[in-house]
Amino acid sequence: MENVEYDLVITNGICVTAADIASYDIAIKDEKIVLLAPSGSLAQAAARKIIDAEGGYVTPGGVDCHVHLEEPPLFGKGYSSDTYETGTRSAIAGGCTTIVGFAPQPKTEPSLLKALKDTHARASGNSFCDYGFHMLVGNPSEQALEELSTISGDEGVTSLKIYMTYTALQIRDDQILSVLLKARENRILTMIHCENGDVLNWMTDQLEAKNLFDPKYHSHSRPPILEAEATNRAIALSSLISHTPILIVHVSDPGATLRIRKAQTNGQPIFAETCPQYLFLTRDDLAAPGFEGAKCVCSPPPRDKESQEAIWTGLRNGTFTVLSSDHCPFNYDDAERGKKTCITPEYPVGRFKQIPNGIPGVETRLPLVFSAGRLALTKFVEVMSTNPAKLYGLYPKKGSLIPGVSDADIVIWYPEGKKPNITLTNEMLHHANDYTPFEGRKIGNWPRYTLLRGKVVWDRDNGGVVGEKSYGQFLKRGASTLDRIWETVEEQGPFDVASF
Amino acid sequence: MENVEYDLVITNGICVTAADIASYDIAIKDEKIVLLAPSGSLAQAAARKIIDAEGGYVTPGGVDCHVHLEEPPLFGKGYSSDTYETGTRSAIAGGCTTIVGFAPQPKTEPSLLKALKDTHARASGNSFCDYGFHMLVGNPSEQALEELSTISGDEGVTSLKIYMTYTALQIRDDQILSVLLKARENRILTMIHCENGDVLNWMTDQLEAKNLFDPKYHSHSRPPILEAEATNRAIALSSLISHTPILIVHVSDPGATLRIRKAQTNGQPIFAETCPQYLFLTRDDLAAPGFEGAKCVCSPPPRDKESQEAIWTGLRNGTFTVLSSDHCPFNYDDAERGKKTCITPEYPVGRFKQIPNGIPGVETRLPLVFSAGRLALTKFVEVMSTNPAKLYGLYPKKGSLIPGVSDADIVIWYPEGKKPNITLTNEMLHHANDYTPFEGRKIGNWPRYTLLRGKVVWDRDNGGVVGEKSYGQFLKRGASTLDRIWETVEEQGPFDVASF
Amino acid sequence: MENVEYDLVITNGICVTAADIASYDIAIKDEKIVLLAPSGSLAQAAARKIIDAEGGYVTPGGVDCHVHLEEPPLFGKGYSSDTYETGTRSAIAGGCTTIVGFAPQPKTEPSLLKALKDTHARASGNSFCDYGFHMLVGNPSEQALEELSTISGDEGVTSLKIYMTYTALQIRDDQILSVLLKARENRILTMIHCENGDVLNWMTDQLEAKNLFDPKYHSHSRPPILEAEATNRAIALSSLISHTPILIVHVSDPGATLRIRKAQTNGQPIFAETCPQYLFLTRDDLAAPGFEGAKCVCSPPPRDKESQEAIWTGLRNGTFTVLSSDHCPFNYDDAERGKKTCITPEYPVGRFKQIPNGIPGVETRLPLVFSAGRLALTKFVEVMSTNPAKLYGLYPKKGSLIPGVSDADIVIWYPEGKKPNITLTNEMLHHANDYTPFEGRKIGNWPRYTLLRGKVVWDRDNGGVVGEKSYGQFLKRGASTLDRIWETVEEQGPFDVASF
Amino acid sequence: MENVEYDLVITNGICVTAADIASYDIAIKDEKIVLLAPSGSLAQAAARKIIDAEGGYVTPGGVDCHVHLEEPPLFGKGYSSDTYETGTRSAIAGGCTTIVGFAPQPKTEPSLLKALKDTHARASGNSFCDYGFHMLVGNPSEQALEELSTISGDEGVTSLKIYMTYTALQIRDDQILSVLLKARENRILTMIHCENGDVLNWMTDQLEAKNLFDPKYHSHSRPPILEAEATNRAIALSSLISHTPILIVHVSDPGATLRIRKAQTNGQPIFAETCPQYLFLTRDDLAAPGFEGAKCVCSPPPRDKESQEAIWTGLRNGTFTVLSSDHCPFNYDDAERGKKTCITPEYPVGRFKQIPNGIPGVETRLPLVFSAGRLALTKFVEVMSTNPAKLYGLYPKKGSLIPGVSDADIVIWYPEGKKPNITLTNEMLHHANDYTPFEGRKIGNWPRYTLLRGKVVWDRDNGGVVGEKSYGQFLKRGASTLDRIWETVEEQGPFDVASF
Repeated sequence: MENVEYDLVITNGICVTAADIASYDIAIKDEKIVLLAPSGSLAQAAARKIIDAEGGYVTPGGVDCHVHLEEPPLFGKGYSSDTYETGTRSAIAGGCTTIVGFAPQPKTEPSLLKALKDTHARASGNSFCDYGFHMLVGNPSEQALEELSTISGDEGVTSLKIYMTYTALQIRDDQILSVLLKARENRILTMIHCENGDVLNWMTDQLEAKNLFDPKYHSHSRPPILEAEATNRAIALSSLISHTPILIVHVSDPGATLRIRKAQTNGQPIFAETCPQYLFLTRDDLAAPGFEGAKCVCSPPPRDKESQEAIWTGLRNGTFTVLSSDHCPFNYDDAERGKKTCITPEYPVGRFKQIPNGIPGVETRLPLVFSAGRLALTKFVEVMSTNPAKLYGLYPKKGSLIPGVSDADIVIWYPEGKKPNITLTNEMLHHANDYTPFEGRKIGNWPRYTLLRGKVVWDRDNGGVVGEKSYGQFLKRGASTLDRIWETVEEQGPFDVASF
Repeated sequence: MENVEYDLVITNGICVTAADIASYDIAIKDEKIVLLAPSGSLAQAAARKIIDAEGGYVTPGGVDCHVHLEEPPLFGKGYSSDTYETGTRSAIAGGCTTIVGFAPQPKTEPSLLKALKDTHARASGNSFCDYGFHMLVGNPSEQALEELSTISGDEGVTSLKIYMTYTALQIRDDQILSVLLKARENRILTMIHCENGDVLNWMTDQLEAKNLFDPKYHSHSRPPILEAEATNRAIALSSLISHTPILIVHVSDPGATLRIRKAQTNGQPIFAETCPQYLFLTRDDLAAPGFEGAKCVCSPPPRDKESQEAIWTGLRNGTFTVLSSDHCPFNYDDAERGKKTCITPEYPVGRFKQIPNGIPGVETRLPLVFSAGRLALTKFVEVMSTNPAKLYGLYPKKGSLIPGVSDADIVIWYPEGKKPNITLTNEMLHHANDYTPFEGRKIGNWPRYTLLRGKVVWDRDNGGVVGEKSYGQFLKRGASTLDRIWETVEEQGPFDVASF
Repeated sequence: MENVEYDLVITNGICVTAADIASYDIAIKDEKIVLLAPSGSLAQAAARKIIDAEGGYVTPGGVDCHVHLEEPPLFGKGYSSDTYETGTRSAIAGGCTTIVGFAPQPKTEPSLLKALKDTHARASGNSFCDYGFHMLVGNPSEQALEELSTISGDEGVTSLKIYMTYTALQIRDDQILSVLLKARENRILTMIHCENGDVLNWMTDQLEAKNLFDPKYHSHSRPPILEAEATNRAIALSSLISHTPILIVHVSDPGATLRIRKAQTNGQPIFAETCPQYLFLTRDDLAAPGFEGAKCVCSPPPRDKESQEAIWTGLRNGTFTVLSSDHCPFNYDDAERGKKTCITPEYPVGRFKQIPNGIPGVETRLPLVFSAGRLALTKFVEVMSTNPAKLYGLYPKKGSLIPGVSDADIVIWYPEGKKPNITLTNEMLHHANDYTPFEGRKIGNWPRYTLLRGKVVWDRDNGGVVGEKSYGQFLKRGASTLDRIWETVEEQGPFDVASF
Repeated sequence: MENVEYDLVITNGICVTAADIASYDIAIKDEKIVLLAPSGSLAQAAARKIIDAEGGYVTPGGVDCHVHLEEPPLFGKGYSSDTYETGTRSAIAGGCTTIVGFAPQPKTEPSLLKALKDTHARASGNSFCDYGFHMLVGNPSEQALEELSTISGDEGVTSLKIYMTYTALQIRDDQILSVLLKARENRILTMIHCENGDVLNWMTDQLEAKNLFDPKYHSHSRPPILEAEATNRAIALSSLISHTPILIVHVSDPGATLRIRKAQTNGQPIFAETCPQYLFLTRDDLAAPGFEGAKCVCSPPPRDKESQEAIWTGLRNGTFTVLSSDHCPFNYDDAERGKKTCITPEYPVGRFKQIPNGIPGVETRLPLVFSAGRLALTKFVEVMSTNPAKLYGLYPKKGSLIPGVSDADIVIWYPEGKKPNITLTNEMLHHANDYTPFEGRKIGNWPRYTLLRGKVVWDRDNGGVVGEKSYGQFLKRGASTLDRIWETVEEQGPFDVASF
């Protein structure tokens, strides 16, 4: 280590990992963290650049494993407002250094590889942060299932997502089993959107039959029990395929949370994700005057205050493995690409079922949760960075601060005394969306610097986004390394239908 | 009451109702019970006929609310072996004086009334016992849903059954909601077969792909979790329609039982039925040598010993409202009408998926459970007669021993000292089926006499079946009177989709 | 039955048992019910007296198995206001024809027989209704435990009560086990007051240390969790002694209710009682102005509205076996016998810990619950009459309407069109207490007649109490016959400490 | 950092913390970890000593927070076989660098400070590893409660332990509340031994009355339900004192585990510990021939195989916060200091109730669990080092590998290819006890080196224990820093008895 000149040194920070919180210095070279040393000891080190954290917290860069960008209008309701370029620009401005987006296979397309190739084309050279893809399986054709081996191997895509809702994407329980079986064989993690699609379509028809079209009825059309029911079903399906690991995405309901918890209590490999919208929004936000409620329309919909508390509790007690943004932005008013306002002469209050489902959030995820101060900081790092990295096969390159091993993806927060006093507005944000559902929120801290592989890509006080869209790299991912997830699966032997 | 000559007097019996057990005499006139008097006091009464029960138990006639007779081969796997004539002959020989059969609407038929008319044609004039029908809704078309008002009103058919399995009958969750909504409006009780059909089809395909065709794989293809899952789903659907009452039929699994229990704990109107096959058979019976296991193939399949105990516990603690036979007989070997043995040159061990699902049991239901001695006799009467009568709108005409009100439908059992020592054989039974799954069982008591509306129709020691097939009457039923079932529903007001 | 002249005939009533509800006539002779016949058929029968029920409901007389009368001041806080004479007078005026009181053994007294003898002396010749005793075991000495065989045999006292609270009565968990073991051997049902006495004493001290003396703090001193905890403990103790049956008395808390329910779900012989105070009062009633709240001080204290609903649900779904009054009256203001007001110069707002615990209710039990209309009438009879009679070995003599067997203990209610419109006042009542906690309640029906062993003892419109205090008889009781309670116990064999 | 000469460098190890696992080098100076650097990068660093880990795992030193040493015979059944000297010698040989022992206050002694002083006298200058004390509160006198402020402040003893069993130590529920209240005020963590002492004494008497004296009856005397019951009670008591944090020690029973899990599900601050004996021993070990079973007598007793699996599951899903040894050694055969064999002429098979409760295990804790390979290594470090350090206020000085902050307490394990193949014998161990309950077990790895504050104190291949008994230091501890434990408590405000 002699005569080294570091590319960058961070001194005087309180560094946080998923286990530890303490003051020490960090040296960076060749895109990697290379040294952890006593606080202040590197203040004079030979380095091209030294950042004095001034006592502020230093955390691994955010890993947001649930981000929808530049997807074709699968649900027939409009285009994502964000491209890879604008979405990842927004990510780094919010401290997120890695995203995992989706490679969506339409129902009409039997091949996954085709969809993957198309997605690469959209993202390549257009990303401010590093990125990977989940396969979004809209059509579990024989061909698609066969391709999973290539997908998870050569292509480095070790997770896929399926839906129990949305007419354009919903697959039946037997199809889910076929997917799980192949996923198990290929060490692919299966993410499931758990809401009962048949039932919510029925509810929607009932509401429309009563001329109830306002955005708030989006919430009426998807009561919590549809989420709890589908979650129970997904867990049953996982257990049938010899306890194949699944991740229940964007959990909003205490009933679903308890069902997941029960599976974990029994030792089943059921993982769960929640999102800021279930911690900070409620169904009341969908009842805003006019059609404004559409800005908070996502699925599942935000619930009530008690549910928020249950989700916080689930984060603290470990029920939730990851906290993602489910960034899925649609413009509120955009004549071209589809829009959240669906007002027409025929539907003067709009029509909730036409509202594209999804809200932006990749930039606000870390600041909102960090500022809330309700999680231990180690837990914050765990669910924001380390667990996502482990769960999705990005670890230890991503998600931690390990010398010689981890990419130097780092967020430096403002220290006491310099904390910004932010009232959030959409203008502050760097996505292409025309609104944020968190407009007007008070936020007590924000990433001061974001570093991606040793390079400052966001410097809030000096230039803002200073990275470039050519800098982000595609991440080939390996199998999940969270705990002993696949070891445990394999100890149980292969699926054997004759064992029932 | 002076100068009355009774048609029949039963003296010296120990009479049992759902609440009471005590010795008293019963006088009958004009098909009704007309007098209950101290034991022995009517021994010398003016009566055309006096039966001395000799200290034996006297119970209300059995009410079996789950009996399949002479149904067209809806599942494409063969005809019921029993006609109304043979099935009801079997019923009275086993102490059952009322059955409720099914009026099956095929998927291709939009009308329920048509199906009902056809069923009347089969049953009318051909029944040894009284009978009613459930509507079996295979196609919840708009027309069918509209007809429910007539069905439950003029036609006296106040219950319907739907399926979450069987390709020929399975309806989707949204269709279930439409049915529940109309059922609620018309005070119709909805019976649901809860198994996840999509998943068990997938399991079946997996088994066949491995050349596993033996009857025992019927059990492998339908693991308990498919029942628990579907039960959870059905309960969720009921709760969505403002807690519309449902009956989960033929529950076999402890997990499903606990789910039902939980709903009852919360005060939800969830009712449950179990059957003798889940008390006396196990999955081992499906693994009998050769293709013999086919004789015990029904759905759900019998489970294991622990499950049997859980079902007994559920009977004792009130989780199960009724204990029915689910009599659904198919011949083991019948070239003409389809058969349980499916052995062909191509499938030398048969093919479990082709085995018609169902077993006979209307005659053995009461004797098996009575002899087991594991239920208090009041509980026996409750689940065998009184609750079925109340649940299906037959009470107090059926299901109890009330003077001036109840039909004189009565079973007289053998007293101590005269108890028969029966080893069950199919030859003893009066159905048309060529086997009984309970062959060889020891049974310690049996109906000595069965009375239907005051007439001895079964006299085991003198002629056996002495009733006639023209004696049984169709029963127009009213709404359920179990507890305050519909009052409670109506206190909650009509379903309102805007209330979510 | 020819040439019989009945002592009494009830015609034109709607008779209700725990199973059945239907119109029929009842004839009575020699203190017994002797005939049930079609409605109206006995209107002209030869009888000394005919009561036309005019379409009103006819129910078995109430059996109140939890009544404290004329007990010495065991808790050192004052005498019962009611003697056997006044208490049983009150009972019959409220339709209660049988009570089971307590024979209290003080801690200082090693013998139970002594206590029993003393109690006989107080009751004998002084009771308007029939009565039995529970042994209240304050000191489970070796002698006492040995005496249990005589107590339950010759003495006909087949139940006992123990306390997990009240310094003067509380016994330790090991003592409870000794009691349960002997109770099991002698087929004695053990009633347990489940509240954690040590903890509530501590809470009381804390409250007093803060100068919080008002009656409402009685509720603060005994939070629901103390009941749920002790209930859990009692159930554990029962299960240790090979599942010895216990009855949890006066359950008020949803948490305790769920714990009991769970035991029943598992098939354990755990029975539960609740009381009108947990259906009609709340903790707010303890916060009445001045010291008036003392009038509702009982233990456990009334809870909140949600708890009331949970208790109603528990009644409907069978969690509660019986609904008793826990009549335990203390005068509000009685200088001689102790009083609920404990106001002294030192404690100008009184002192909640000095308030005698208990409220009157033997007379209001049936009318309050009947009028509420929230239970099916069969359930009403079940928890008010039949189950108490079965549980405490009084059946079928008491608790039902069986010809030749049941005592003619009957309540006739006002029919539609003649229903009284009652606003309850203490003056209406027949106890000796100077208040009722239900003052001012609207009550929509009331026993019009009460019959005890065929004799009208209460005729509301003609003389009120027309029975005599010499008429009530002591009831030697046998072992419980509820379901197969002791058969099930004995199937498990005797307690064997080596089996653990 | 220039020109530094390190005291010690560890190169080529795979370092594990509670969050991370990766290869990097560690440099140590002045007893602290001072540098983490890329693997191999420090192989040539200026250092007095370089240890090549050869690819073996490097973990933080074990923190064993439940160790009984040199305690006076509180239970009247014999002295600990280990002194501080022998016990801590054993600790370091097993990779444990910090223990927390007990300062036991006898029931007869009102002061805690006295007990603490005595314990210091025993430990000071006699410890091979660093150590702290828990206050063992045998007598929660007013004085003792007052002293807690000094104890937790100046004395650095921020945890205490109380017992719900053992006649000599058991305190009542009200006393527990008093302790919890003071513990809450002083940020002291309360450890509770949860078994129902009254009941197990009764069970013991019953067994003795049947002449059942063998060691195996120790298990019979303490069935699992006594643990589950007491655990439920302790949790209720914690919740009463405004959710004061407690640690349930040495959990063995799945029922207790589920109860704890439920509290955590609800967000309550209930923490739990388990021990190797509940992962590796069963009740069958107590039934060894002769009196050998006494060697496995501890409380709670080891349970069955299913329970072991439940405990493993509880470790994996986070129910258990820490895994301690509960090292509590008594000689099997020691005439002087008391002994596990209690054979006397009167009791020729011994007498289980006289067997001192406890087994040795401080040395085998890490090797046994590490070798089992059933926990992810990050989880291993979490429950063995990091969480104990955080929970007991030793972090970040102890329990992790943080540069500039953590003491250089480190275990280096054998790498692949050099792993020892150990069959455990007592001769290998370094305690003073005359047996190990794990005799004969196969163990696949063992600490190769143990470092305490930068000094090699155990070098298995070169000298074994190379540390000195004067090197261990007393650790003044601060309040727990696990998650936001006290912040969460304080957000709820102080205990307010008027809030109930």
